[in-house]
Amino acid sequence: MIPKTHRRVVLVRRPPGEVAESDFHIEEVPMPEPGPGQVLVRVVYLSLDPYMRGRMRDAASYAAPVGIGEVMTGGTVGEVVRSSHPGYKAGDMVEDRLGWQEYALGPGPAMRKIDPSHAPISLSNSLLGMPGMTAYFGLYEIGQPKPGETVVVSAASGAVGQVVGQLAKIAGCRAIGIAGGPNKCAFVKDTLGFDACIDYKAEKDLASAVKAACANGVDVYFDNVGGPVSDAVLANLNFYARVVLCGSISQYNTAEPGPRWMGTFVGKRTTARGFIVWDFNARYAPALRQMGEWVRSGRIKYKQDIVEGIENAPRAFIGLLRGDNFGKLQVKLGPDPTGR
Amino acid sequence: MIPKTHRRVVLVRRPPGEVAESDFHIEEVPMPEPGPGQVLVRVVYLSLDPYMRGRMRDAASYAAPVGIGEVMTGGTVGEVVRSSHPGYKAGDMVEDRLGWQEYALGPGPAMRKIDPSHAPISLSNSLLGMPGMTAYFGLYEIGQPKPGETVVVSAASGAVGQVVGQLAKIAGCRAIGIAGGPNKCAFVKDTLGFDACIDYKAEKDLASAVKAACANGVDVYFDNVGGPVSDAVLANLNFYARVVLCGSISQYNTAEPGPRWMGTFVGKRTTARGFIVWDFNARYAPALRQMGEWVRSGRIKYKQDIVEGIENAPRAFIGLLRGDNFGKLQVKLGPDPTGR
Repeated sequence: MIPKTHRRVVLVRRPPGEVAESDFHIEEVPMPEPGPGQVLVRVVYLSLDPYMRGRMRDAASYAAPVGIGEVMTGGTVGEVVRSSHPGYKAGDMVEDRLGWQEYALGPGPAMRKIDPSHAPISLSNSLLGMPGMTAYFGLYEIGQPKPGETVVVSAASGAVGQVVGQLAKIAGCRAIGIAGGPNKCAFVKDTLGFDACIDYKAEKDLASAVKAACANGVDVYFDNVGGPVSDAVLANLNFYARVVLCGSISQYNTAEPGPRWMGTFVGKRTTARGFIVWDFNARYAPALRQMGEWVRSGRIKYKQDIVEGIENAPRAFIGLLRGDNFGKLQVKLGPDPTGR
Repeated sequence: MIPKTHRRVVLVRRPPGEVAESDFHIEEVPMPEPGPGQVLVRVVYLSLDPYMRGRMRDAASYAAPVGIGEVMTGGTVGEVVRSSHPGYKAGDMVEDRLGWQEYALGPGPAMRKIDPSHAPISLSNSLLGMPGMTAYFGLYEIGQPKPGETVVVSAASGAVGQVVGQLAKIAGCRAIGIAGGPNKCAFVKDTLGFDACIDYKAEKDLASAVKAACANGVDVYFDNVGGPVSDAVLANLNFYARVVLCGSISQYNTAEPGPRWMGTFVGKRTTARGFIVWDFNARYAPALRQMGEWVRSGRIKYKQDIVEGIENAPRAFIGLLRGDNFGKLQVKLGPDPTGR
């Protein structure tokens, strides 16, 4: 039975610094009715990702901001519950970007059917979705790792970081993670198989810790965090190192100045390159097939941090920006019909 | 007649910040005698370049530091005055890196004969030497300019900058210079043919001035200076812009923090890449032939700032770090036998 109403999270205030729960409002609205060519989707998993902090800002960027009073954007995995679209029927599992809401009309901007027999459907929001593709193209295309090189990744137990290190191992590299706290570090090293993991919260001199962990220096730095953690890695770059600029989560709530690295990059011949995973859209299919094989064979492991209930999305998102999550953060908005 | 002694400049102190004349000592030493396979070269032109500030530092870099009591390194053009080397005879004009001294034994690390009928011999230290090659490979290989794009270069009237803008025009781009003072800016625009030149000393809001001069944004930024001037350009980058990291002269005497750009580079998909011209050594020959043609045809113009006498080298170098020079700085240590 489809209820008469559902809940969604709208943006009500643009935070100048730290995000607060009061920046969001949870509202209950009437259930929408699919028109011709539309489907009604019940969202099962909502992906929470650091890029969403950028959408809360009223600034020109690579994507439009969320308007005040609008539903927060976000990647989703859900179940078609009604369809007036010839390509979809009730019961189909679909990936899309339908936002922070329990139900939504589709097709949205990225509707794609999922075969639940391949892998748990939540992975379409993570390892077999945007974060996984970010790791894959970021490391392999931007990072250009070569066998025997040393790859360092920050936020190493996060949605992207945990994949980067495992892909680095597959490429024949040493993989060094940086994560916050002993539990995350133990997971990164013992479960994911990184060669080492540095606990940035425990190290007084992080640059020296990176140096100690990277006896041959750093050839590829996959940067998810920016700020002082990155400074510690950048101080240890080898000649011709590649810096993969994926995110700067430590800087999303602040505008603190930092050391100027451009001068160092000259003599070291560093290449620092920013990217957005969409740029590789046309090449997702083979990459997803390869990642799917690695998941099914157990070659790649993946940890998710699943919170229940849309009412907990704002708090979970705020925790994500602080690094409180352990693994890829998702919100489960309702029962998973595949039971996985 | 070859004198019995000659003068040279040695490093006597590593400056922690601003360079002072007292960091150098000018000493008079006996004239060396070429052994078998050696030549004695009278240096005519000594090139003064910003990279030399790095050699005064006792830090691991892409090149070894100058030792205390050692002759300062530097590119030179000179005349062979004695030869015990089968490949050279008295009267040959040669390019090399013989350092801050009036005479030196060669062959040094980069000895190469120059044909004075092709171009003024001093150009082998500048347009047809290291600075010219830096502009050529930095812009064309690292910058990857495309017709119709906008190229911005800082230190636009300097040894490298004046070439970068002209090469950008040859590539079909808009060329915008940044330089200090109305005379330099007028030269850059009127004589060199840049589309515009911004006087960073006159602008209160440099980022807005860059924006006004670059109606379509900045596609390539060739960075010779770093620091606040670069911040103003980086604030105006287009998506997929290339930042050619050539030098950071504004930062060589300081360690002031600055804005963190890595987060911006993510969404803009910026590529910032440092380089050293030596990396392109194997490809100098065709580039030099091309540049030589452009010079002879008048397609590329070039301004030099020639100071006379080795005793003035330290003061001229200090002025270079402050941007006092106007054009490529060289020191003429003695008469130019080609008379040009």
